[in-house]
Amino acid sequence: MHATTSPRQLANTIRVLAMDAVQQAKSGHPGAPMGMADIATVLWRDVLKHNPQDPSWPDRDRFVLSNGHGSMLLYALLHLTGYDLPMSELKRFRQLHSKTPGHPEYGYTPGVETTTGPLGAGIANAVGMAVAEKTLAAQFNQPGFPLVDHFTYCFLGDGCLMEGVSHEACSLAGTLKLGKLIAFWDDNGISIDGHVEGWFSDNTPQRFAAYGWQVIPAVDGHDAAAIADAIRQAQANPEQPTLICCKTVIGFGSPNKAGSHDCHGAPLGEAEVAAVRAQLGWPWPAFEIPAEIAAAWDQRAKGVAKQQVWQQLWQDYQGRFPQLAAEFSRRVLDRQLPPQFADVARGHILDCQQQAQTMATRKASQNSIGVFAGMMPEILGGSADLAGSNLTLWPAAKALHQHADGNYLHYGVREFGMNSIMNGVALHGGFVPFGGTFLMFMEYGRNAVRMAALMGIQSIFVYTHDSIAQGEDGPTHQPVEQVPNLRLTPNLSTWRPADATETAVAWQHALERKHGPTALVFSRQNTEAVVPKDLDVDLIRRGAYVVAQSGEQAVPALILLATGAEVGLALQAYQQLAAAGTAVRLVSMPSTDVFDAQDAAYQATVLPAGSKILAIEAAHQDYWYKYTGRDGAIIGMRSFGESAPGPALMQHFGFSVENIVAAAQQLLV
Amino acid sequence: MHATTSPRQLANTIRVLAMDAVQQAKSGHPGAPMGMADIATVLWRDVLKHNPQDPSWPDRDRFVLSNGHGSMLLYALLHLTGYDLPMSELKRFRQLHSKTPGHPEYGYTPGVETTTGPLGAGIANAVGMAVAEKTLAAQFNQPGFPLVDHFTYCFLGDGCLMEGVSHEACSLAGTLKLGKLIAFWDDNGISIDGHVEGWFSDNTPQRFAAYGWQVIPAVDGHDAAAIADAIRQAQANPEQPTLICCKTVIGFGSPNKAGSHDCHGAPLGEAEVAAVRAQLGWPWPAFEIPAEIAAAWDQRAKGVAKQQVWQQLWQDYQGRFPQLAAEFSRRVLDRQLPPQFADVARGHILDCQQQAQTMATRKASQNSIGVFAGMMPEILGGSADLAGSNLTLWPAAKALHQHADGNYLHYGVREFGMNSIMNGVALHGGFVPFGGTFLMFMEYGRNAVRMAALMGIQSIFVYTHDSIAQGEDGPTHQPVEQVPNLRLTPNLSTWRPADATETAVAWQHALERKHGPTALVFSRQNTEAVVPKDLDVDLIRRGAYVVAQSGEQAVPALILLATGAEVGLALQAYQQLAAAGTAVRLVSMPSTDVFDAQDAAYQATVLPAGSKILAIEAAHQDYWYKYTGRDGAIIGMRSFGESAPGPALMQHFGFSVENIVAAAQQLLV
Repeated sequence: MHATTSPRQLANTIRVLAMDAVQQAKSGHPGAPMGMADIATVLWRDVLKHNPQDPSWPDRDRFVLSNGHGSMLLYALLHLTGYDLPMSELKRFRQLHSKTPGHPEYGYTPGVETTTGPLGAGIANAVGMAVAEKTLAAQFNQPGFPLVDHFTYCFLGDGCLMEGVSHEACSLAGTLKLGKLIAFWDDNGISIDGHVEGWFSDNTPQRFAAYGWQVIPAVDGHDAAAIADAIRQAQANPEQPTLICCKTVIGFGSPNKAGSHDCHGAPLGEAEVAAVRAQLGWPWPAFEIPAEIAAAWDQRAKGVAKQQVWQQLWQDYQGRFPQLAAEFSRRVLDRQLPPQFADVARGHILDCQQQAQTMATRKASQNSIGVFAGMMPEILGGSADLAGSNLTLWPAAKALHQHADGNYLHYGVREFGMNSIMNGVALHGGFVPFGGTFLMFMEYGRNAVRMAALMGIQSIFVYTHDSIAQGEDGPTHQPVEQVPNLRLTPNLSTWRPADATETAVAWQHALERKHGPTALVFSRQNTEAVVPKDLDVDLIRRGAYVVAQSGEQAVPALILLATGAEVGLALQAYQQLAAAGTAVRLVSMPSTDVFDAQDAAYQATVLPAGSKILAIEAAHQDYWYKYTGRDGAIIGMRSFGESAPGPALMQHFGFSVENIVAAAQQLLV
Repeated sequence: MHATTSPRQLANTIRVLAMDAVQQAKSGHPGAPMGMADIATVLWRDVLKHNPQDPSWPDRDRFVLSNGHGSMLLYALLHLTGYDLPMSELKRFRQLHSKTPGHPEYGYTPGVETTTGPLGAGIANAVGMAVAEKTLAAQFNQPGFPLVDHFTYCFLGDGCLMEGVSHEACSLAGTLKLGKLIAFWDDNGISIDGHVEGWFSDNTPQRFAAYGWQVIPAVDGHDAAAIADAIRQAQANPEQPTLICCKTVIGFGSPNKAGSHDCHGAPLGEAEVAAVRAQLGWPWPAFEIPAEIAAAWDQRAKGVAKQQVWQQLWQDYQGRFPQLAAEFSRRVLDRQLPPQFADVARGHILDCQQQAQTMATRKASQNSIGVFAGMMPEILGGSADLAGSNLTLWPAAKALHQHADGNYLHYGVREFGMNSIMNGVALHGGFVPFGGTFLMFMEYGRNAVRMAALMGIQSIFVYTHDSIAQGEDGPTHQPVEQVPNLRLTPNLSTWRPADATETAVAWQHALERKHGPTALVFSRQNTEAVVPKDLDVDLIRRGAYVVAQSGEQAVPALILLATGAEVGLALQAYQQLAAAGTAVRLVSMPSTDVFDAQDAAYQATVLPAGSKILAIEAAHQDYWYKYTGRDGAIIGMRSFGESAPGPALMQHFGFSVENIVAAAQQLLV
């Protein structure tokens, strides 16, 4: 049979691949790929600026599948356009260690720009990518040299639109006038529970108009010409992000399941798979694509040509703007720290150590940000409307809503949006984003923190007001279980520093840690300096170290183990105990994950077997059994806090020198 | 000086009380109370149906301060209208164990309907209260007997509107046509970072119109007549919730700080406090209120009269509809379980025990829901668009969007909205809400789970797909650190049952636990029955119990400690080890918090000191050191999962009989 290469038949290639791969895996979501195949075909063949043979080309258009359960749509596109994703991988859809996991996973599959699946997160990532593009363009482009000039496209479904994070991110996208963000709403009227009108009756065009978006309503998502027209209109508007509302039929091509949630999240079944083949006029077996169709899909030559245009531009740019080009190379192409980074960091850390100032670690953090941002214009800071409380603004910060080439984003009261946008910024490249909120409201953005850890990207989460010592705002604002929750997150590095010196080390760590996020947890209240002036500060970088010891024993009778502001308290208790003749050691452990990654020998020098350990931290106690065992003791939290001045609360909940001393003495009985 | 009782002067009473209390506490938020005082005065004096002397009157109007940082507004209103909140408590604003904590706390202060502070949560609670009112009315009202007939009012600020949860909850409120929900937007143009236009430029009236709300735009929030008109218009529309957009000046009355974020979150300072007194014409000292003004505020007599009308209605209703009245008494007034509850629960549990069926615990959960809902019409179920996956629908469930008197809410893809709405339903009374999602997406709604625990209310959180065994959807959908996160939450009871019998016990526990929420964590995959047919099932209710033991030792050499689906796996390992002659015990621990609450003697009979403990759970391992100590071992997760069929993943990550046996043998060396 002769294969036509009409837009519809090219789209059918996606439909059949998706349906067959889901059928073979015996699980997955055929409905969305089949419904959005026509849109995807127009976008990926006629519009998208990309080079399948170089997925890292920095000026490529970005594509985000926010409805990530439709992963086979993306895998089909990547395979067909020529990315390094052979058919053998499509056949292994959803199998262990394949390049085709159930949802698109950043780092697994060439061309997957972000991990999606948790609904709404993808569109928020896309907003972040568009923020990065716009800001990077403002920082680097020169007249006649549009070095950074690409679009961000995003597919999303009803589920993404129902999720609150879509509100947060899309509202901010409108305010920031992200004209190069173009989203396609897969308006198929179906979610898992069925026809959506019983639980989702928003006037979505009106909603997005309220955000300041350009809205193109009522586009037939199965009409290639209408789709192409809409994309042109979207691209032509530089001042507004665009929502293209695409009326589609979920599972298009399935004679018995199209338009129903039956095709959303389960294989069609062998009989229906055959019926689809008949309906679409697709006689070829599973995973076989006629050569004419494969050729019509192949974007490799076109991609190379597109990138060559940019390479020429880049070469000319390097000649004309060598300093900017060097910085672009460092930040975007090589993703390297500035050459002076290590020296500046060390100088700053030693300064903190010698000055030994009493200050809140959030204030110390602000000082560190100032030092690091001075040599790292790639730092893109921000806060969820708590700049003055988180102390995330530094003297040279410039707000993005006032300066296109700025380095600070006022995210508004949008923690989840902020964290997801940060992830998009980090994924885009050219920036190291950080964003602040109260530690308590980590929870609002929690899944984005996890996604950063899962993707292994460098988002830096700044959390202040880190315990009940927060004080008068009361238990709604006082973290208890939040620090342990961060520590239990794989591939997230968490620091709760005790003083300004540890804070500086924590920031250094976060900025050096390219392949994973870091959570920096700071106090509202003042903390005294605990790092001894003669300490080798490299020990802090090992996650835990000995602050003081009353004797020379390799295995002291007692170890006080503390973090954050409680190290200062423990130091006072240590002094009393030492004065009373107890063989006692004080250990500060700003980062449990970093300490856990040290060799066993170092770990044993800090926490030798045989010592009784008393852990002290104003957070949920249960985490600390890991280090104290069942024969140690813990001064921690087991309940929520209260509203009262911080010092009164610390006393009330047992964080006092006398209580530490008493617990220590009891432990040694 | 003679005290006038004009609406403005009555509002000034609030302004001065708020400003003085914040000044005395040296912390707090004067701006919002001063800005919203005129609105509050109209609402609380002229409109609100309440009786300050009976805050538990079930048909009172509900009032929610979603911008909870303005707590002094609410405390002033409660004090002035005659609730049991004396001036001495206002003087102790934000002090330890006062009735005036920094944010309104449910259970601390008579008349506080919900705990607010985390922004956006309050409006979502209010949506839940309105859902409860509408549904309860449909279930109980009879022609001429509007037993349930009240409004829910909510104040909210820009911060609430920026938060994503406001989108989720307000979108659903529009769909559900909650005509008796009336929200007041404090449109003051200020958030903590300053003037909001740089980060918040939504057309909010257009946004809410898109949700299907009635929007009353551009109301002067300092004009008592305009506010009263708007409220009348809102009340007159039974088909749509209403947003009243109130233009206000933050810190109204402060000559130097009004209209600026300087008065948002800090005391005004002594000088400005004096300047406010002069500007407002308020010569009286702090915390002194002239008798004429106090009398004009006092709502006690009016409140008694209003409630008496309802009491007469209720008395007549009892005569005319004795069966309905008995049920109303049980569900709403007494909040009691049905009398047959204990017997039905026991019978169901024993049935499960004897049938010993292999099934997924999510399926067992569905069966339990069916049994309990059969006698508890107060159960209001739901799921965030995963009814068919969570198995939260039971045969007699009726959807609220189709039946006003139904018992099931299709929440849409809105986890945070769902959980916050559930909390509002629970707070309203008359219902026991449960809501399902994948355990992974607990994170989206996480802060509402915490708020339920903090408030001590009976929301039941149903989580399925509880581990990497979820399978093909991959790590974005596979919980690792989520179960420990739940367990670390104070006052949350968490159950991860092993089989159908434990599932039935878990549901019984959740339904009996009136003063706190319960998280029920269920498997996607089948689990074999592990509860022995001769076990005293009351032991399961102690959180952990001995499933099997190979000998009679009080202190066996080895204890296998497992939860959920891993108990079945551990049982196979136990059998191998026992057959090889090891003195081994198998303990199932479906609820760590319940076990921790047992007396020490019982704990010691289950987990005696001296046994080596090997914990097995497909969740983050670090939680288990609490029970294993440092000399036990743990088979758990330390990384994220992968996309592959569940059985392949379990094998890959070490959850296999041979690996358990090997770890056990190593532990005993």
